[in-house]
Amino acid sequence: MTIKTVVLLNPGNMGATIGASVNGPRVLWVSDGRSEGTRQRAQKAKLVEVETLAEAVGESDAVLSVCPPHAAEEVAQSVAGLGFAGLYVDANAVSRATAERVGQAVGKGGATFVDGAIIGPPVTKPGRTRLYLSGAGAEVVAELFSGSMLDAKVIAGDPGAASALKMTYAAWTKGSDALILAIRALAAREGVEEALLQEWAGSQPNLPGKSERAASVAAPKGWRYVGEMEEIAASFGAAGLPTGFHEAAADLYRRLAPFKDRTDPGPEVKEVLDAL
Amino acid sequence: MTIKTVVLLNPGNMGATIGASVNGPRVLWVSDGRSEGTRQRAQKAKLVEVETLAEAVGESDAVLSVCPPHAAEEVAQSVAGLGFAGLYVDANAVSRATAERVGQAVGKGGATFVDGAIIGPPVTKPGRTRLYLSGAGAEVVAELFSGSMLDAKVIAGDPGAASALKMTYAAWTKGSDALILAIRALAAREGVEEALLQEWAGSQPNLPGKSERAASVAAPKGWRYVGEMEEIAASFGAAGLPTGFHEAAADLYRRLAPFKDRTDPGPEVKEVLDAL
Repeated sequence: MTIKTVVLLNPGNMGATIGASVNGPRVLWVSDGRSEGTRQRAQKAKLVEVETLAEAVGESDAVLSVCPPHAAEEVAQSVAGLGFAGLYVDANAVSRATAERVGQAVGKGGATFVDGAIIGPPVTKPGRTRLYLSGAGAEVVAELFSGSMLDAKVIAGDPGAASALKMTYAAWTKGSDALILAIRALAAREGVEEALLQEWAGSQPNLPGKSERAASVAAPKGWRYVGEMEEIAASFGAAGLPTGFHEAAADLYRRLAPFKDRTDPGPEVKEVLDAL
Repeated sequence: MTIKTVVLLNPGNMGATIGASVNGPRVLWVSDGRSEGTRQRAQKAKLVEVETLAEAVGESDAVLSVCPPHAAEEVAQSVAGLGFAGLYVDANAVSRATAERVGQAVGKGGATFVDGAIIGPPVTKPGRTRLYLSGAGAEVVAELFSGSMLDAKVIAGDPGAASALKMTYAAWTKGSDALILAIRALAAREGVEEALLQEWAGSQPNLPGKSERAASVAAPKGWRYVGEMEEIAASFGAAGLPTGFHEAAADLYRRLAPFKDRTDPGPEVKEVLDAL
């Protein structure tokens, strides 16, 4: 199977860099209804503008879906509704169950489903971002990124394995950031924040820094972690494990919506704790 | 106020070493209804046996309560019911609200309440275990341990501050151990445990070790963490913060009851994950 044209849905902060990492094939983006920020990211990533989804899907051998978790199924249904019969890669932070629903939706349209998951930051340097891939067609998709700064890795298992890996990975990184922010908020409300920071300095020396990074880095992105925490909670529930860790994390990140995209500089710890 | 005699309720693994750390006053323990293991710990700690609680309380200027969180109020009520009017120190892992109820109970009996919280392992070496103390009388209690291996620290705030500090501290140590065990259990069920361990080895190098320690160290103690997790969840709830992290942790530790006191060697990771 030779891939000549790929459509990237959609060029957000992460997606644009994934599109830019495709090595060889032409990469399209769909401008219909997208913002000026998206256009700028797409141009910087040297993606080719196409106005409508129908036109883009008609020209493409592969679709790369990189979008917020809650939009993953909707994107898949839109593409399936256009009769797309190529390779469909869902690279989103969704549970195995959601990934399987995406696979069923695009399979009905005749496409081959490849399950993907991105671990790491947007692709700006080599060695920092992995795209895990599972299912038939995973090798072909990995080949698209050969020689790029994105490290594409095929893992064993049915489609769903890559998504499951992402869930378990983010369950710690984003889950533990939510936990530590909740703890600092509790300490502040109880009037024992200084005592806790002193105790941590002696016996848990990495925690003061971890809590400060969580406030400045995670708070501005919290609004878009909510859906991911809900997907993780669903993954735990489906496996008969407690869902509360990530339901609580979703609740916490929902409270951080006022900090949406507040970077350079990120919010002060105190501001974040007050908002919780 | 001069303290000549203290009663330690009761000489568990932690309590016996706290009793042994009292420097100067005589330390009693109550043998009525206690196990042979308790007797051995009390003897090793050189505590003085008294048969009944009434006799012990009658002879003592101070009571040190070191017991599982769910028993803290019951112990306080028993002592208050005997008309104890000395210093009552609750050193247990309870919420501020529970500590305040303990304080009210013993206050009605005429005692002065000192809120305490132990952070660290049983006292076997200097520099590893802190007893935080808050409230009127905290200084007098701290003085009991001067020159011992237990580091007694008075912190600012009403009685309840020491308990609040303990809640925030254990919220991370025991909460994050529960979280990482749940994550490894999910990875095992999803068939992505090897992939997760490899990804962690590269990008989160402390997590494989943390998860293994949680399995071997926390699993044998999980049965007695349940009450503490519930006290922590209540503390979050009282402060308007999400309770789910520690409700989930309580749920998880409850599932580890079969490993009660299985140390030397602790259980294998796989056994622990299978039990979750």
